[in-house]
Amino acid sequence: MINPFFTNKGPFKISEISALLKISYDMDSEDINVNDITDLMSANKNHITFFHSKKYNKIANKTKASFCITTANLKTELPETCKPLVVNNVLVSTAKVTEKFYPNSVNDLFDDTCLFINETKFKDKIRYGKNVLIGNNVSIGANCTIGHNTIIEQNVSIGDNCTIGSNVILRNAIICENVNILDSSVIGKHGFGFFPNNSKNLRYPHIGLVIIEENCEIGCGSTIDRGSMSNTVIGKNTFLDNQIHIAHNVKIGENSIIAGQVGIAGSTIIGKNVKIGGQAGISGHLKIGNNVDIAGGSGVIKDIPDNSKVMGYPAKSLREFLRENK
Amino acid sequence: MINPFFTNKGPFKISEISALLKISYDMDSEDINVNDITDLMSANKNHITFFHSKKYNKIANKTKASFCITTANLKTELPETCKPLVVNNVLVSTAKVTEKFYPNSVNDLFDDTCLFINETKFKDKIRYGKNVLIGNNVSIGANCTIGHNTIIEQNVSIGDNCTIGSNVILRNAIICENVNILDSSVIGKHGFGFFPNNSKNLRYPHIGLVIIEENCEIGCGSTIDRGSMSNTVIGKNTFLDNQIHIAHNVKIGENSIIAGQVGIAGSTIIGKNVKIGGQAGISGHLKIGNNVDIAGGSGVIKDIPDNSKVMGYPAKSLREFLRENK
Amino acid sequence: MINPFFTNKGPFKISEISALLKISYDMDSEDINVNDITDLMSANKNHITFFHSKKYNKIANKTKASFCITTANLKTELPETCKPLVVNNVLVSTAKVTEKFYPNSVNDLFDDTCLFINETKFKDKIRYGKNVLIGNNVSIGANCTIGHNTIIEQNVSIGDNCTIGSNVILRNAIICENVNILDSSVIGKHGFGFFPNNSKNLRYPHIGLVIIEENCEIGCGSTIDRGSMSNTVIGKNTFLDNQIHIAHNVKIGENSIIAGQVGIAGSTIIGKNVKIGGQAGISGHLKIGNNVDIAGGSGVIKDIPDNSKVMGYPAKSLREFLRENK
Repeated sequence: MINPFFTNKGPFKISEISALLKISYDMDSEDINVNDITDLMSANKNHITFFHSKKYNKIANKTKASFCITTANLKTELPETCKPLVVNNVLVSTAKVTEKFYPNSVNDLFDDTCLFINETKFKDKIRYGKNVLIGNNVSIGANCTIGHNTIIEQNVSIGDNCTIGSNVILRNAIICENVNILDSSVIGKHGFGFFPNNSKNLRYPHIGLVIIEENCEIGCGSTIDRGSMSNTVIGKNTFLDNQIHIAHNVKIGENSIIAGQVGIAGSTIIGKNVKIGGQAGISGHLKIGNNVDIAGGSGVIKDIPDNSKVMGYPAKSLREFLRENK
Repeated sequence: MINPFFTNKGPFKISEISALLKISYDMDSEDINVNDITDLMSANKNHITFFHSKKYNKIANKTKASFCITTANLKTELPETCKPLVVNNVLVSTAKVTEKFYPNSVNDLFDDTCLFINETKFKDKIRYGKNVLIGNNVSIGANCTIGHNTIIEQNVSIGDNCTIGSNVILRNAIICENVNILDSSVIGKHGFGFFPNNSKNLRYPHIGLVIIEENCEIGCGSTIDRGSMSNTVIGKNTFLDNQIHIAHNVKIGENSIIAGQVGIAGSTIIGKNVKIGGQAGISGHLKIGNNVDIAGGSGVIKDIPDNSKVMGYPAKSLREFLRENK
Repeated sequence: MINPFFTNKGPFKISEISALLKISYDMDSEDINVNDITDLMSANKNHITFFHSKKYNKIANKTKASFCITTANLKTELPETCKPLVVNNVLVSTAKVTEKFYPNSVNDLFDDTCLFINETKFKDKIRYGKNVLIGNNVSIGANCTIGHNTIIEQNVSIGDNCTIGSNVILRNAIICENVNILDSSVIGKHGFGFFPNNSKNLRYPHIGLVIIEENCEIGCGSTIDRGSMSNTVIGKNTFLDNQIHIAHNVKIGENSIIAGQVGIAGSTIIGKNVKIGGQAGISGHLKIGNNVDIAGGSGVIKDIPDNSKVMGYPAKSLREFLRENK
């Protein structure tokens, strides 16, 4: 599974999963053990997956999953080896099954395994401030410093030579070498993902991680949410300024520079060597190429090819924007 | 009064209030006790109110207040039962009188009644992290959890089944059932309200609350300011993403969804089932209808009727915006 | 030097500085002691300065520095008393030399001189919350209050009658009288300044301060970065709302009002009596005049003269913007 930290409570019998989804289960077929839930591409035999939009037809055609939560219209795209579980709302059903496998991934209760760092094995190994808290299953490399009041919840890995500021909260994160995380950032909480529902929204699980590669800097007061079914990734040597929000499943390439108060919505993929000016916003599910410059204040609502310079809301060619706004 | 938590230091004699405002007081009339200060509509007999703009003429005509801070031009709109106190600057005078009744509502000093939670009655009643602080007159329902380093100042009420994250600050707030407040949010501080003044601005009192209704989620690093003369309200089952700012007196209806980094300026009223995309900004004193969609990055500067979709800066019909920006 | 708090590790011999920059050193000349590094205008005899753009020609002509890091093209502008050190990249070389003089100004490690306030001389002098930390060489005036969990690192000066909220982090800052700093603000960290470099960016030193003049208010969750070679200054009686970001070297005049979520990029100078609406962004290295009104949501990308009202992205005359957007 994507996140080594969330414990998979499976396997579960397919009869049990069918009952959870309130769909009829063919009593004549074998009651197979389902080992895990993953996306169409990653799924293997004895996994369950989900398929909710025809734009994934080609991937669905080849999935190796044994079961797939899908709709009556889409089920014909699945290979014979994959048995459809037909439901009305694929995403709600997927949320229910994912929660069954990964019950701790829905709500982020505070980590009650946390101890004051001077009661842990790190007591004499690193430099740390007052009131630092460390949860279970945390690893911290050599030459790290951790500032006052910082909370490192369970299941965090920090590489060598990292500097973690004060009042920081880390959870469900892999921090590589030489990373600076500045004061008051919150990294690794579940994303803003749920199924709207008139009396009570239904949160869906977030079993992804935040991965921050080597040599990065994350500015003060920034928030980086962990992924739902994949990871949120900040590529190596990418620097983020203060008050930036990176939503779930976003991936940012290496050597990028992101100025203050930028927001990047969920599942957007950003290339290498990208520069984003202050307060720019990027919609979700977009693909931004390599070597792209996005001017400060821009609102990006569609994909941007490699080597482009854009500005405006909606963002367009920088040259065009400047010509129109002389 | 709106906020059950701020102690009303009244009653005060009308002669005393007149002296504070440096206006002459008719010695022949009875020196009535004034019990409270409220807005034109809520005021009752022996209350003082204020009236500073002709757009409130109709409400002023019917006020039940015994006294009203107003101008020479506007005073003729008041009923005979309401005696005008004529001043040059109604809002500054109102601030002075409100401060007299509610002296603790102007500055937000840290709450020195706070104790570590293990020294309070909550010690064995809820799950809590390290360094949690609780002030006087706090109530917390069943099945709540409170994260590390969180500060719940005096006069906060929290319903059942709430999850409060780490590094959160709550004050002057009523949190209903099943609410999640995520890490590093600051809820209930006084709003950004003051009378500009060249050498030293004059803060005005904020005697409102923040009310967060049931089933809401408030994202990390968000700020929700309490009201000045009314409350700031987040309607039930409304979800806010990270780094959102909600100013004083804002009211948001139920089942709304507000994405990251949105800002809503003071006294704006937002309907039910409203969706607001990331980084959108909404000016103050506006009325946004029900079932409105505001696209990410929009800047809303006028009222929006029910069932509209808008985008742009300034926000206009979504269809028109997309047509103009093909 | 600008910042009284960063310790100058000099003097260093010019031969040693030349070796650091990998430039040849004239063995026949005297191996002078260089006392400090400063900008062209502030530099005195036995100082080293830097000169990287012809727009500073006039200042360069008159510099009193004994040495100047510059390019082959620019060196002819220097007076005879100033010896050029010719390099390929002036700013990278300047960063290296500055780091030599001020090694603590590059990375902001947490301050390990901090003690719990009740172990310091302030124990009985001011009102403070739980877990307050105070570093070396801090001064705090009369009648101040400091909220829970707040960290005041070494080298901070706070004037009389200041109110510091909870969860605040202060470092490298001079806070004048009657200032309110609200919860969760982070003031005085190094700016977002570095030389991009494909495998590992090179941070440059920040030896400036944050200076907040008297009667200011700084809202919750705001970040104000200290200057690199000059100071970041908030003029007296200027009020900032929540979630504002002020980058390094910015200077804001007195009596200004800045609404929520505004961002001001590095080195921009803003006049007196300026009003900036919510979420407006201002690019770096601009000059905004006195008595300017910038509407909420605006994106300012060029200088604005005194007494202007602007709106839009890019910001233009308010009248023009409103006419075009009826």
